[in-house]
Amino acid sequence: LILYGRNAVREALHGRRAVFRAWAEDERAAADARAAGVPVEMADTAGLEAICGSPDHQGMVCEAAPYPYADPGALLGGDEPLVVGLDQIQDPQNLGAICRSAEGAGASGVVIPERRAAEVTPAVCRASAGAVEHLPVARVRNLADFLLEAKEAGAWVYGADAAAGRLYTEVDWSGPAVMVLGSEGKGLRPRVQAACDDLVKVPLRGRVGSLNVAATAAILLFEAVRSRAGLRQGLDKST
Amino acid sequence: LILYGRNAVREALHGRRAVFRAWAEDERAAADARAAGVPVEMADTAGLEAICGSPDHQGMVCEAAPYPYADPGALLGGDEPLVVGLDQIQDPQNLGAICRSAEGAGASGVVIPERRAAEVTPAVCRASAGAVEHLPVARVRNLADFLLEAKEAGAWVYGADAAAGRLYTEVDWSGPAVMVLGSEGKGLRPRVQAACDDLVKVPLRGRVGSLNVAATAAILLFEAVRSRAGLRQGLDKST
Repeated sequence: LILYGRNAVREALHGRRAVFRAWAEDERAAADARAAGVPVEMADTAGLEAICGSPDHQGMVCEAAPYPYADPGALLGGDEPLVVGLDQIQDPQNLGAICRSAEGAGASGVVIPERRAAEVTPAVCRASAGAVEHLPVARVRNLADFLLEAKEAGAWVYGADAAAGRLYTEVDWSGPAVMVLGSEGKGLRPRVQAACDDLVKVPLRGRVGSLNVAATAAILLFEAVRSRAGLRQGLDKST
Repeated sequence: LILYGRNAVREALHGRRAVFRAWAEDERAAADARAAGVPVEMADTAGLEAICGSPDHQGMVCEAAPYPYADPGALLGGDEPLVVGLDQIQDPQNLGAICRSAEGAGASGVVIPERRAAEVTPAVCRASAGAVEHLPVARVRNLADFLLEAKEAGAWVYGADAAAGRLYTEVDWSGPAVMVLGSEGKGLRPRVQAACDDLVKVPLRGRVGSLNVAATAAILLFEAVRSRAGLRQGLDKST
């Protein structure tokens, strides 16, 4: 499996999966691979594009083991887990962007369905700036079933829905929590929506009527971080 | 100038610039154009791609007047303006995504430099889901000079900087405000940074060390919305 992109390759070199060899356009990129004990060959831009099949390689390409998906149940362990569930996100850019924000927010992981959804392809690794090498991403056969299991395990499940009555700032993000985001344009499927404890919306004041799903994810993730930190500090009385 | 993408064309039909004619793949798309009084021709996928030069047209293309840039000074008027300043954002996807979030947050507008930055091209219109047709976007010769003018006009200028000492949740977003975001990877240039009243960061808990600039923009924009709404309601004592 061929990964490409400077950050994607760099994080893979220090992540959970094996990296077998690398190709680099310049010495600085090559040095990163050598420092990680990975054999490197030099190649020019066109050569790298031929190896990875994308012009978007930023001078660094590597061959790595398949993406090491996490165990979905394990994401719900630990202290105050925060899990992102994605219902049929199709766009690799969006999946990558959401994973990058989730990793930055210190989320426990991202859960995606096995079918009719983007997988963690090299394009997703690139779009996540390598965040998927550190963030656990799990695949489940059925997202609604996973949400029911999460509830049994004590998590509160919030679905993002533009038609929800409650604002995302009005709910309690403390304790084990799962936030669920629907596919671009279509939102949550009925069974997934029914498995949520509560639906929340980001208030919109413009004319366009929807946010990009990766923007919504970033807003909800960092509201959870803010609200949890505020509760710990006893400073915030608003939620 | 040829615009493409279902939302991009639909919002252009109801936006500030003239739309001269449209091409549509199906009757539903054609009806939107006709309802706006714009002549429509039917075309197939390949025909639409030939007209707009992109496979990403979603069955709808139109010919429109050039993008109507706003007057930068006008963005600072009105009640409690919230302006986004972008320092050399190069990626059309990021510029479009930021404009979409800014429009959704009810921001007054986005200011971009004239040089070494993405303009509001058809790709940006597409990436913004048409939000740029409603959101004022202004170009300035020098972003630092604009920030100084904004300060003279009474605005508080916050720069996003990963190395800042203050969290974005610790500052006062009420009153006229400008948030400034730096280019991908490079951050704010020294003169732009020097023109800010305060630098703020989004706290990161992962290993990757940075968020996508469009994610940062979404987080800051909706924190400003949340904090302003909270202050108005007198509910929030945390900021």
